[in-house]
Amino acid sequence: MTFIEKYREIVQKNKSYVCVGLDSDFDKLPETVRQFPDPQGLFNNLIIEATKDYVCAYKINIAFYECRGAAGWMSLEATLKGIPGDIPVIIDAKRGDIGNTSKKYAQAIYEQLGADAVTLNPYLGIDAVEPFLEYEGRCAFILCHTTNKSSSEFQHAMVSAEGSSRTGPLYELVARRVAEWNKTGSCGLVVGANVPEHISRICELAPGLPLLIPGIGAQKGSVRDVVTQLRGIDFMINSSRNIIFAGEGEDFQEEAAGQAMALRDIINDLLEKG
Amino acid sequence: MTFIEKYREIVQKNKSYVCVGLDSDFDKLPETVRQFPDPQGLFNNLIIEATKDYVCAYKINIAFYECRGAAGWMSLEATLKGIPGDIPVIIDAKRGDIGNTSKKYAQAIYEQLGADAVTLNPYLGIDAVEPFLEYEGRCAFILCHTTNKSSSEFQHAMVSAEGSSRTGPLYELVARRVAEWNKTGSCGLVVGANVPEHISRICELAPGLPLLIPGIGAQKGSVRDVVTQLRGIDFMINSSRNIIFAGEGEDFQEEAAGQAMALRDIINDLLEKG
Repeated sequence: MTFIEKYREIVQKNKSYVCVGLDSDFDKLPETVRQFPDPQGLFNNLIIEATKDYVCAYKINIAFYECRGAAGWMSLEATLKGIPGDIPVIIDAKRGDIGNTSKKYAQAIYEQLGADAVTLNPYLGIDAVEPFLEYEGRCAFILCHTTNKSSSEFQHAMVSAEGSSRTGPLYELVARRVAEWNKTGSCGLVVGANVPEHISRICELAPGLPLLIPGIGAQKGSVRDVVTQLRGIDFMINSSRNIIFAGEGEDFQEEAAGQAMALRDIINDLLEKG
Repeated sequence: MTFIEKYREIVQKNKSYVCVGLDSDFDKLPETVRQFPDPQGLFNNLIIEATKDYVCAYKINIAFYECRGAAGWMSLEATLKGIPGDIPVIIDAKRGDIGNTSKKYAQAIYEQLGADAVTLNPYLGIDAVEPFLEYEGRCAFILCHTTNKSSSEFQHAMVSAEGSSRTGPLYELVARRVAEWNKTGSCGLVVGANVPEHISRICELAPGLPLLIPGIGAQKGSVRDVVTQLRGIDFMINSSRNIIFAGEGEDFQEEAAGQAMALRDIINDLLEKG
Protein backbone atom coordinates (compact mmCIF):
# COMPACT_ATOMS: atom_id res chain seq x y z
CA MET A 1 0.00 0.00 0.00
CA THR A 2 1.41 3.40 -0.93
CA PHE A 3 1.66 6.35 1.41
CA ILE A 4 -1.22 8.10 -0.26
CA GLU A 5 -3.47 5.02 -0.16
CA LYS A 6 -2.66 4.51 3.49
CA TYR A 7 -3.36 8.19 4.16
CA ARG A 8 -6.70 8.11 2.36
CA GLU A 9 -7.83 4.98 4.18
CA ILE A 10 -7.03 6.37 7.60
CA VAL A 11 -8.70 9.68 6.73
CA GLN A 12 -11.83 7.64 5.96
CA LYS A 13 -11.53 5.54 9.08
CA ASN A 14 -10.64 8.26 11.58
CA LYS A 15 -12.45 11.10 9.80
CA SER A 16 -9.40 13.22 10.52
CA TYR A 17 -6.91 15.48 8.76
CA VAL A 18 -4.86 15.96 11.92
CA CYS A 19 -1.19 15.00 11.92
CA VAL A 20 0.25 14.83 15.41
CA GLY A 21 3.86 15.98 15.63
CA LEU A 22 5.84 13.94 18.11
CA ASP A 23 8.30 16.75 18.87
CA SER A 24 8.79 15.27 22.29
CA ASP A 25 11.36 17.57 23.84
CA PHE A 26 12.99 15.47 26.54
CA ASP A 27 13.17 18.45 28.92
CA LYS A 28 9.41 18.96 28.78
CA LEU A 29 8.29 15.39 29.45
CA PRO A 30 5.84 15.08 32.34
CA GLU A 31 7.16 13.91 35.72
CA THR A 32 5.06 10.78 35.57
CA VAL A 33 7.09 9.16 32.75
CA ARG A 34 10.50 10.19 34.03
CA GLN A 35 10.91 7.31 36.45
CA PHE A 36 10.90 4.75 33.62
CA PRO A 37 13.93 3.59 31.60
CA ASP A 38 13.01 5.31 28.29
CA PRO A 39 10.85 8.32 29.19
CA GLN A 40 10.76 9.73 25.64
CA GLY A 41 9.78 6.44 24.00
CA LEU A 42 7.23 5.72 26.72
CA PHE A 43 5.70 9.22 26.53
CA ASN A 44 5.31 8.89 22.77
CA ASN A 45 3.72 5.47 23.07
CA LEU A 46 1.22 6.83 25.59
CA ILE A 47 0.46 9.83 23.35
CA ILE A 48 -0.02 7.51 20.37
CA GLU A 49 -2.33 5.26 22.39
CA ALA A 50 -4.40 8.29 23.38
CA THR A 51 -4.60 9.95 19.95
CA LYS A 52 -4.51 7.15 17.40
CA ASP A 53 -8.23 7.29 16.65
CA TYR A 54 -8.16 11.03 15.91
CA VAL A 55 -5.24 11.37 13.51
CA CYS A 56 -4.37 10.73 9.87
CA ALA A 57 -0.59 10.64 10.42
CA TYR A 58 2.22 11.04 12.90
CA LYS A 59 5.13 13.32 12.11
CA ILE A 60 8.35 12.78 14.00
CA ASN A 61 10.81 15.62 14.05
CA ILE A 62 14.09 13.80 14.22
CA ALA A 63 16.01 16.69 15.85
CA PHE A 64 14.33 15.92 19.18
CA TYR A 65 15.92 12.46 19.09
CA GLU A 66 19.29 13.24 17.49
CA CYS A 67 20.08 15.68 20.26
CA ARG A 68 20.23 12.67 22.61
CA GLY A 69 22.60 10.66 20.42
CA ALA A 70 22.35 6.87 20.31
CA ALA A 71 19.90 6.88 23.26
CA GLY A 72 17.63 9.23 21.32
CA TRP A 73 17.79 6.99 18.29
CA MET A 74 16.61 4.10 20.43
CA SER A 75 13.71 6.21 21.75
CA LEU A 76 12.84 6.97 18.15
CA GLU A 77 12.78 3.27 17.30
CA ALA A 78 10.63 2.56 20.36
CA THR A 79 8.25 5.28 19.20
CA LEU A 80 7.95 3.84 15.71
CA LYS A 81 7.06 0.44 17.17
CA GLY A 82 4.10 2.01 18.92
CA ILE A 83 2.50 3.49 15.81
CA PRO A 84 -0.30 1.30 14.40
CA GLY A 85 0.52 -0.09 10.95
CA ASP A 86 -2.41 1.66 9.29
CA ILE A 87 -1.27 5.18 10.27
CA PRO A 88 1.37 6.77 8.01
CA VAL A 89 4.60 7.97 9.60
CA ILE A 90 6.39 11.07 8.33
CA ILE A 91 9.97 11.63 9.44
CA ASP A 92 10.45 15.39 9.52
CA ALA A 93 14.14 15.50 8.71
CA LYS A 94 14.41 18.33 6.15
CA ARG A 95 17.41 16.57 4.67
CA GLY A 96 19.13 17.69 1.50
CA ASP A 97 22.37 16.29 0.16
CA ILE A 98 23.61 14.79 -3.08
CA GLY A 99 24.68 11.53 -4.71
CA ASN A 100 25.99 8.92 -2.41
CA THR A 101 25.06 10.89 0.69
CA SER A 102 21.47 11.41 -0.32
CA LYS A 103 21.17 7.66 -0.87
CA LYS A 104 22.37 7.09 2.68
CA TYR A 105 19.80 9.55 4.04
CA ALA A 106 17.08 7.73 2.10
CA GLN A 107 18.33 4.46 3.52
CA ALA A 108 18.25 5.92 7.05
CA ILE A 109 14.68 7.16 6.74
CA TYR A 110 13.05 4.47 4.62
CA GLU A 111 15.02 1.34 5.51
CA GLN A 112 16.54 1.90 8.92
CA LEU A 113 13.46 3.66 10.30
CA GLY A 114 10.92 2.24 7.84
CA ALA A 115 8.99 5.51 7.51
CA ASP A 116 6.25 6.12 4.94
CA ALA A 117 7.29 9.69 4.18
CA VAL A 118 9.96 12.29 4.78
CA THR A 119 10.48 16.05 4.56
CA LEU A 120 13.30 17.31 2.31
CA ASN A 121 14.93 20.63 1.44
CA PRO A 122 14.91 21.77 -2.22
CA TYR A 123 18.05 23.97 -2.32
CA LEU A 124 20.22 21.37 -4.11
CA GLY A 125 17.59 20.53 -6.73
CA ILE A 126 16.29 17.12 -7.69
CA ASP A 127 19.63 15.41 -7.00
CA ALA A 128 18.81 15.60 -3.29
CA VAL A 129 15.35 14.14 -3.83
CA GLU A 130 15.83 11.45 -6.46
CA PRO A 131 17.24 8.72 -4.18
CA PHE A 132 14.08 9.07 -2.09
CA LEU A 133 11.82 8.80 -5.13
CA GLU A 134 13.38 5.44 -5.94
CA TYR A 135 11.42 4.06 -3.02
CA GLU A 136 8.13 3.99 -4.87
CA GLY A 137 4.96 4.48 -2.93
CA ARG A 138 6.60 6.58 -0.21
CA CYS A 139 6.21 10.35 -0.16
CA ALA A 140 8.88 13.05 -0.11
CA PHE A 141 7.39 16.31 1.15
CA ILE A 142 9.58 19.12 -0.15
CA LEU A 143 9.86 22.36 1.81
CA CYS A 144 8.15 25.00 -0.28
CA HIS A 145 6.66 27.81 1.79
CA THR A 146 7.50 27.98 5.49
CA THR A 147 5.92 30.10 8.19
CA ASN A 148 8.93 31.38 10.05
CA LYS A 149 9.85 35.05 10.13
CA SER A 150 12.97 34.81 7.99
CA SER A 151 11.34 32.60 5.35
CA SER A 152 11.07 35.71 3.18
CA GLU A 153 14.84 36.12 2.94
CA PHE A 154 15.00 33.59 0.11
CA GLN A 155 11.58 31.99 -0.39
CA HIS A 156 9.95 35.32 -1.21
CA ALA A 157 12.76 36.64 -3.37
CA MET A 158 11.44 37.20 -6.90
CA VAL A 159 13.08 34.75 -9.28
CA SER A 160 13.09 33.77 -12.89
CA ALA A 161 14.25 30.24 -13.67
CA GLU A 162 17.11 29.65 -16.13
CA GLY A 163 15.80 30.01 -19.66
CA SER A 164 12.46 31.44 -18.55
CA SER A 165 11.14 34.98 -18.48
CA ARG A 166 8.39 34.18 -15.96
CA THR A 167 9.04 35.69 -12.54
CA GLY A 168 7.52 34.88 -9.17
CA PRO A 169 8.61 34.19 -5.61
CA LEU A 170 11.11 31.38 -5.17
CA TYR A 171 8.56 29.20 -3.37
CA GLU A 172 6.40 29.20 -6.51
CA LEU A 173 9.36 28.02 -8.59
CA VAL A 174 9.87 25.28 -6.01
CA ALA A 175 6.20 24.25 -6.31
CA ARG A 176 6.48 24.14 -10.12
CA ARG A 177 9.67 22.11 -10.08
CA VAL A 178 8.36 19.61 -7.54
CA ALA A 179 5.27 19.12 -9.73
CA GLU A 180 7.71 18.16 -12.53
CA TRP A 181 9.67 15.82 -10.23
CA ASN A 182 6.46 14.05 -9.26
CA LYS A 183 6.55 11.48 -12.08
CA THR A 184 5.84 8.49 -9.88
CA GLY A 185 3.47 10.29 -7.52
CA SER A 186 5.98 10.24 -4.67
CA CYS A 187 6.23 13.98 -4.00
CA GLY A 188 4.34 16.31 -1.72
CA LEU A 189 4.88 19.85 -0.45
CA VAL A 190 5.35 21.44 2.95
CA VAL A 191 3.31 24.62 2.94
CA GLY A 192 3.00 26.78 6.02
CA ALA A 193 -0.44 27.90 7.06
CA ASN A 194 0.11 31.60 7.62
CA VAL A 195 -0.96 33.01 4.25
CA PRO A 196 -3.97 31.10 2.85
CA GLU A 197 -3.81 32.79 -0.58
CA HIS A 198 -0.30 31.44 -1.01
CA ILE A 199 -1.63 27.95 -0.38
CA SER A 200 -4.24 28.22 -3.11
CA ARG A 201 -1.64 29.57 -5.55
CA ILE A 202 0.67 26.65 -4.75
CA CYS A 203 -2.20 24.21 -5.33
CA GLU A 204 -2.67 25.73 -8.80
CA LEU A 205 1.03 25.34 -9.63
CA ALA A 206 1.35 21.82 -8.26
CA PRO A 207 -2.08 20.27 -8.68
CA GLY A 208 -2.71 16.94 -7.00
CA LEU A 209 0.29 17.02 -4.70
CA PRO A 210 -0.43 16.18 -1.07
CA LEU A 211 0.24 19.02 1.35
CA LEU A 212 1.79 18.80 4.76
CA ILE A 213 0.73 21.94 6.61
CA PRO A 214 2.55 22.99 9.75
CA GLY A 215 1.95 26.32 11.40
CA ILE A 216 -1.17 25.45 13.35
CA GLY A 217 -1.10 25.93 17.07
CA ALA A 218 2.25 26.89 18.48
CA GLN A 219 3.07 28.52 15.14
CA LYS A 220 -0.27 30.40 15.09
CA GLY A 221 -1.72 29.88 11.64
CA SER A 222 -5.42 30.36 11.30
CA VAL A 223 -7.10 27.02 10.71
CA ARG A 224 -10.24 28.61 9.38
CA ASP A 225 -8.68 30.54 6.52
CA VAL A 226 -6.55 27.62 5.51
CA VAL A 227 -9.04 24.80 5.52
CA THR A 228 -11.43 26.49 3.11
CA GLN A 229 -8.63 26.36 0.48
CA LEU A 230 -8.21 22.62 0.86
CA ARG A 231 -11.39 20.90 -0.26
CA GLY A 232 -10.59 18.03 -2.63
CA ILE A 233 -6.89 18.08 -1.77
CA ASP A 234 -4.91 15.45 0.11
CA PHE A 235 -3.70 17.41 3.10
CA MET A 236 -2.77 17.01 6.70
CA ILE A 237 -2.55 19.75 9.26
CA ASN A 238 0.19 19.24 11.78
CA SER A 239 0.06 20.24 15.39
CA SER A 240 2.81 19.26 17.78
CA ARG A 241 3.28 20.98 21.15
CA ASN A 242 -0.35 22.10 21.42
CA ILE A 243 -1.40 18.47 21.40
CA ILE A 244 1.38 16.45 22.99
CA PHE A 245 2.11 18.94 25.77
CA ALA A 246 -1.50 20.04 26.29
CA GLY A 247 -1.41 18.60 29.81
CA GLU A 248 1.54 18.70 32.16
CA GLY A 249 0.27 16.38 34.86
CA GLU A 250 -0.83 12.75 35.06
CA ASP A 251 -3.76 13.50 32.77
CA PHE A 252 -1.52 14.29 29.79
CA GLN A 253 -3.04 11.48 27.73
CA GLU A 254 -6.59 12.78 28.13
CA GLU A 255 -5.46 16.35 27.44
CA ALA A 256 -3.65 15.30 24.26
CA ALA A 257 -6.62 13.25 23.08
CA GLY A 258 -8.91 16.18 23.79
CA GLN A 259 -6.79 18.60 21.77
CA ALA A 260 -6.44 16.18 18.84
CA MET A 261 -10.21 15.61 18.79
CA ALA A 262 -10.91 19.32 19.04
CA LEU A 263 -8.64 20.14 16.08
CA ARG A 264 -10.12 17.24 14.09
CA ASP A 265 -13.63 18.55 14.72
CA ILE A 266 -12.78 22.15 13.86
CA ILE A 267 -11.28 21.08 10.53
CA ASN A 268 -14.20 18.78 9.71
CA ASP A 269 -16.74 21.47 10.56
CA LEU A 270 -14.98 23.96 8.31
CA LEU A 271 -14.76 21.46 5.46
CA GLU A 272 -18.49 20.76 5.72
CA LYS A 273 -19.83 24.24 6.33
CA GLY A 274 -17.06 26.45 4.94
CA MET B 1 39.99 28.69 21.09
CA THR B 2 37.56 29.45 18.25
CA PHE B 3 37.11 27.32 15.16
CA ILE B 4 38.98 29.80 13.03
CA GLU B 5 41.91 30.08 15.46
CA LYS B 6 42.12 26.31 15.66
CA TYR B 7 41.99 26.09 11.88
CA ARG B 8 44.73 28.69 11.40
CA GLU B 9 47.01 27.01 13.93
CA ILE B 10 46.70 23.59 12.33
CA VAL B 11 47.20 25.09 8.86
CA GLN B 12 50.49 26.49 10.20
CA LYS B 13 51.49 23.27 11.90
CA ASN B 14 50.52 20.80 9.16
CA LYS B 15 51.07 23.17 6.23
CA SER B 16 47.83 21.85 4.79
CA TYR B 17 44.50 23.06 3.43
CA VAL B 18 43.18 19.52 3.04
CA CYS B 19 40.00 18.52 4.80
CA VAL B 20 39.50 14.77 4.85
CA GLY B 21 35.88 13.72 4.55
CA LEU B 22 35.11 10.67 6.66
CA ASP B 23 32.27 9.49 4.41
CA SER B 24 32.97 5.98 5.53
CA ASP B 25 30.34 3.99 3.71
CA PHE B 26 29.97 0.82 5.76
CA ASP B 27 29.57 -1.32 2.63
CA LYS B 28 32.93 -0.18 1.28
CA LEU B 29 35.06 -0.78 4.37
CA PRO B 30 38.12 -2.96 3.73
CA GLU B 31 37.95 -6.63 4.73
CA THR B 32 40.69 -6.17 7.26
CA VAL B 33 38.56 -4.08 9.67
CA ARG B 34 35.38 -6.11 9.31
CA GLN B 35 36.30 -8.74 11.85
CA PHE B 36 36.31 -6.18 14.69
CA PRO B 37 33.30 -5.10 16.77
CA ASP B 38 32.97 -1.56 15.33
CA PRO B 39 34.44 -1.67 11.81
CA GLN B 40 33.33 1.86 10.89
CA GLY B 41 34.72 3.48 14.04
CA LEU B 42 37.93 1.47 13.79
CA PHE B 43 38.41 2.27 10.10
CA ASN B 44 38.00 5.98 10.80
CA ASN B 45 40.43 5.86 13.69
CA LEU B 46 43.02 4.18 11.48
CA ILE B 47 42.44 6.73 8.70
CA ILE B 48 42.79 9.56 11.21
CA GLU B 49 46.00 8.05 12.58
CA ALA B 50 47.38 7.84 9.06
CA THR B 51 46.36 11.30 7.84
CA LYS B 52 46.39 13.56 10.91
CA ASP B 53 49.67 15.24 10.00
CA TYR B 54 48.47 16.19 6.51
CA VAL B 55 45.09 17.77 7.16
CA CYS B 56 43.60 21.02 8.44
CA ALA B 57 40.20 19.53 9.34
CA TYR B 58 38.05 16.43 9.30
CA LYS B 59 34.55 16.59 7.88
CA ILE B 60 32.10 13.91 8.90
CA ASN B 61 29.08 13.42 6.73
CA ILE B 62 26.51 12.29 9.23
CA ALA B 63 24.35 10.42 6.68
CA PHE B 64 26.89 7.59 6.59
CA TYR B 65 26.27 7.03 10.31
CA GLU B 66 22.54 7.77 10.55
CA CYS B 67 21.82 5.05 8.02
CA ARG B 68 23.00 2.55 10.65
CA GLY B 69 20.78 3.91 13.42
CA ALA B 70 21.97 3.82 17.04
CA ALA B 71 24.94 1.62 16.08
CA GLY B 72 26.02 4.22 13.54
CA TRP B 73 25.73 6.95 16.12
CA MET B 74 28.09 5.00 18.37
CA SER B 75 30.57 4.61 15.49
CA LEU B 76 30.36 8.36 15.00
CA GLU B 77 31.17 8.95 18.66
CA ALA B 78 34.07 6.49 18.46
CA THR B 79 35.33 8.42 15.42
CA LEU B 80 35.18 11.76 17.18
CA LYS B 81 37.22 10.36 20.09
CA GLY B 82 40.01 9.53 17.65
CA ILE B 83 40.41 13.05 16.25
CA PRO B 84 43.27 14.96 17.90
CA GLY B 85 42.06 17.99 19.87
CA ASP B 86 43.96 20.46 17.72
CA ILE B 87 42.22 19.46 14.46
CA PRO B 88 38.81 21.08 13.83
CA VAL B 89 35.85 18.78 13.23
CA ILE B 90 33.07 19.77 10.82
CA ILE B 91 29.83 17.81 10.97
CA ASP B 92 28.44 17.87 7.45
CA ALA B 93 24.75 17.70 8.29
CA LYS B 94 23.17 20.30 5.97
CA ARG B 95 20.47 20.83 8.56
CA GLY B 96 17.84 23.53 8.30
CA ASP B 97 14.83 23.88 10.57
CA ILE B 98 13.32 26.58 12.73
CA GLY B 99 12.78 27.66 16.31
CA ASN B 100 12.75 24.93 18.84
CA THR B 101 13.84 22.30 16.33
CA SER B 102 16.83 24.25 15.13
CA LYS B 103 17.96 24.59 18.75
CA LYS B 104 17.80 20.83 19.12
CA TYR B 105 19.90 20.34 15.97
CA ALA B 106 22.47 22.80 17.33
CA GLN B 107 22.46 20.88 20.60
CA ALA B 108 22.97 17.60 18.71
CA ILE B 109 25.94 18.90 16.72
CA TYR B 110 27.66 21.19 19.22
CA GLU B 111 26.83 19.61 22.57
CA GLN B 112 26.05 15.96 21.95
CA LEU B 113 28.82 15.55 19.34
CA GLY B 114 30.98 18.49 20.45
CA ALA B 115 31.88 19.51 16.88
CA ASP B 116 33.69 22.75 16.00
CA ALA B 117 31.63 23.44 12.89
CA VAL B 118 28.58 22.35 10.94
CA THR B 119 27.08 22.69 7.47
CA LEU B 120 23.59 24.20 7.19
CA ASN B 121 21.00 24.85 4.48
CA PRO B 122 19.88 28.46 3.86
CA TYR B 123 16.35 27.89 2.48
CA LEU B 124 14.57 28.87 5.72
CA GLY B 125 16.64 32.02 6.24
CA ILE B 126 18.52 33.07 9.36
CA ASP B 127 15.98 31.42 11.70
CA ALA B 128 17.57 28.08 10.85
CA VAL B 129 21.06 29.39 11.51
CA GLU B 130 20.71 31.62 14.56
CA PRO B 131 20.60 28.88 17.23
CA PHE B 132 23.95 27.69 15.89
CA LEU B 133 25.43 31.20 16.02
CA GLU B 134 24.65 31.35 19.72
CA TYR B 135 27.52 28.93 20.22
CA GLU B 136 30.20 31.57 19.76
CA GLY B 137 33.50 30.54 18.30
CA ARG B 138 32.06 27.65 16.30
CA CYS B 139 31.46 27.95 12.57
CA ALA B 140 28.27 27.39 10.58
CA PHE B 141 29.14 26.78 6.93
CA ILE B 142 26.05 27.67 4.89
CA LEU B 143 25.39 25.91 1.58
CA CYS B 144 25.84 28.54 -1.08
CA HIS B 145 26.99 27.12 -4.41
CA THR B 146 27.02 23.36 -4.85
CA THR B 147 28.59 21.29 -7.61
CA ASN B 148 25.86 18.81 -8.39
CA LYS B 149 24.10 18.74 -11.72
CA SER B 150 20.72 19.98 -10.49
CA SER B 151 22.20 22.80 -8.39
CA SER B 152 21.17 25.17 -11.17
CA GLU B 153 17.45 24.47 -10.65
CA PHE B 154 17.29 26.98 -7.82
CA GLN B 155 20.79 28.23 -7.00
CA HIS B 156 21.28 29.67 -10.49
CA ALA B 157 17.79 31.14 -10.83
CA MET B 158 18.08 34.90 -11.22
CA VAL B 159 16.64 36.64 -8.17
CA SER B 160 16.02 40.05 -6.79
CA ALA B 161 15.67 40.26 -3.02
CA GLU B 162 12.60 41.89 -1.45
CA GLY B 163 12.95 45.65 -1.63
CA SER B 164 15.95 45.53 -3.95
CA SER B 165 16.31 46.01 -7.68
CA ARG B 166 19.67 44.23 -7.85
CA THR B 167 19.46 40.86 -9.59
CA GLY B 168 21.86 37.94 -9.60
CA PRO B 169 21.82 34.19 -9.15
CA LEU B 170 20.28 32.93 -5.91
CA TYR B 171 23.65 31.69 -4.64
CA GLU B 172 24.96 35.28 -4.75
CA LEU B 173 22.00 36.45 -2.65
CA VAL B 174 22.83 33.65 -0.21
CA ALA B 175 26.46 34.80 -0.04
CA ARG B 176 25.36 38.39 0.62
CA ARG B 177 22.89 37.40 3.32
CA VAL B 178 25.35 35.13 5.10
CA ALA B 179 27.86 37.99 5.14
CA GLU B 180 25.17 40.01 6.99
CA TRP B 181 24.47 37.15 9.40
CA ASN B 182 28.16 36.90 10.25
CA LYS B 183 28.08 39.44 13.10
CA THR B 184 30.02 37.29 15.55
CA GLY B 185 32.33 35.75 12.95
CA SER B 186 30.66 32.34 13.20
CA CYS B 187 29.62 31.88 9.57
CA GLY B 188 31.32 30.32 6.59
CA LEU B 189 30.20 29.21 3.14
CA VAL B 190 30.13 25.91 1.28
CA VAL B 191 31.23 26.66 -2.26
CA GLY B 192 31.67 23.91 -4.80
CA ALA B 193 34.85 23.86 -6.82
CA ASN B 194 33.50 23.44 -10.33
CA VAL B 195 33.38 27.06 -11.49
CA PRO B 196 36.37 29.04 -10.18
CA GLU B 197 34.99 32.42 -11.32
CA HIS B 198 31.94 31.85 -9.15
CA ILE B 199 34.22 31.35 -6.17
CA SER B 200 35.97 34.67 -6.70
CA ARG B 201 32.63 36.46 -7.07
CA ILE B 202 31.39 34.88 -3.82
CA CYS B 203 34.57 36.02 -2.06
CA GLU B 204 33.82 39.59 -3.19
CA LEU B 205 30.27 39.41 -1.85
CA ALA B 206 31.19 37.77 1.45
CA PRO B 207 34.71 38.98 2.20
CA GLY B 208 36.54 37.27 5.03
CA LEU B 209 34.24 34.29 5.35
CA PRO B 210 35.97 30.92 5.53
CA LEU B 211 35.17 28.61 2.64
CA LEU B 212 34.57 24.90 2.76
CA ILE B 213 35.18 23.60 -0.74
CA PRO B 214 33.95 20.18 -1.74
CA GLY B 215 34.02 18.98 -5.30
CA ILE B 216 37.60 17.83 -5.45
CA GLY B 217 38.28 14.25 -6.36
CA ALA B 218 35.20 12.10 -6.67
CA GLN B 219 33.23 15.21 -7.60
CA LYS B 220 35.84 16.26 -10.22
CA GLY B 221 36.58 19.92 -9.58
CA SER B 222 39.86 21.23 -10.88
CA VAL B 223 42.17 22.00 -7.97
CA ARG B 224 44.41 24.19 -10.08
CA ASP B 225 41.77 26.67 -11.21
CA VAL B 226 40.29 26.91 -7.77
CA VAL B 227 43.36 27.36 -5.62
CA THR B 228 44.60 30.40 -7.49
CA GLN B 229 41.41 32.22 -6.38
CA LEU B 230 42.06 31.49 -2.73
CA ARG B 231 45.22 33.28 -1.66
CA GLY B 232 44.65 35.16 1.58
CA ILE B 233 41.37 33.38 2.28
CA ASP B 234 40.63 30.88 5.04
CA PHE B 235 39.69 27.83 3.05
CA MET B 236 39.73 24.09 3.18
CA ILE B 237 39.43 21.75 0.25
CA ASN B 238 37.57 18.59 1.06
CA SER B 239 38.27 15.20 -0.41
CA SER B 240 36.50 12.13 0.86
CA ARG B 241 36.39 8.87 -1.11
CA ASN B 242 39.57 9.62 -3.08
CA ILE B 243 41.49 9.67 0.18
CA ILE B 244 39.79 7.28 2.57
CA PHE B 245 39.10 4.59 0.00
CA ALA B 246 42.33 5.09 -1.98
CA GLY B 247 43.43 1.58 -1.01
CA GLU B 248 41.18 -1.42 -0.73
CA GLY B 249 43.58 -3.87 0.87
CA GLU B 250 45.60 -4.01 4.07
CA ASP B 251 47.64 -1.02 2.96
CA PHE B 252 44.63 1.33 3.11
CA GLN B 253 46.30 3.53 5.73
CA GLU B 254 49.39 4.15 3.60
CA GLU B 255 47.26 4.75 0.51
CA ALA B 256 45.08 7.28 2.35
CA ALA B 257 48.13 9.04 3.79
CA GLY B 258 49.68 9.13 0.32
CA GLN B 259 46.60 10.71 -1.24
CA ALA B 260 46.21 13.27 1.56
CA MET B 261 49.89 14.25 1.23
CA ALA B 262 49.64 14.45 -2.53
CA LEU B 263 46.63 16.77 -2.42
CA ARG B 264 48.30 18.87 0.29
CA ASP B 265 51.41 19.25 -1.87
CA ILE B 266 49.48 20.11 -5.03
CA ILE B 267 47.57 22.86 -3.21
CA ASN B 268 50.71 24.25 -1.57
CA ASP B 269 52.61 24.27 -4.86
CA LEU B 270 49.79 26.13 -6.57
CA LEU B 271 49.57 28.67 -3.74
CA GLU B 272 53.31 29.32 -3.95
CA LYS B 273 53.82 29.33 -7.69
CA GLY B 274 50.32 30.08 -9.01
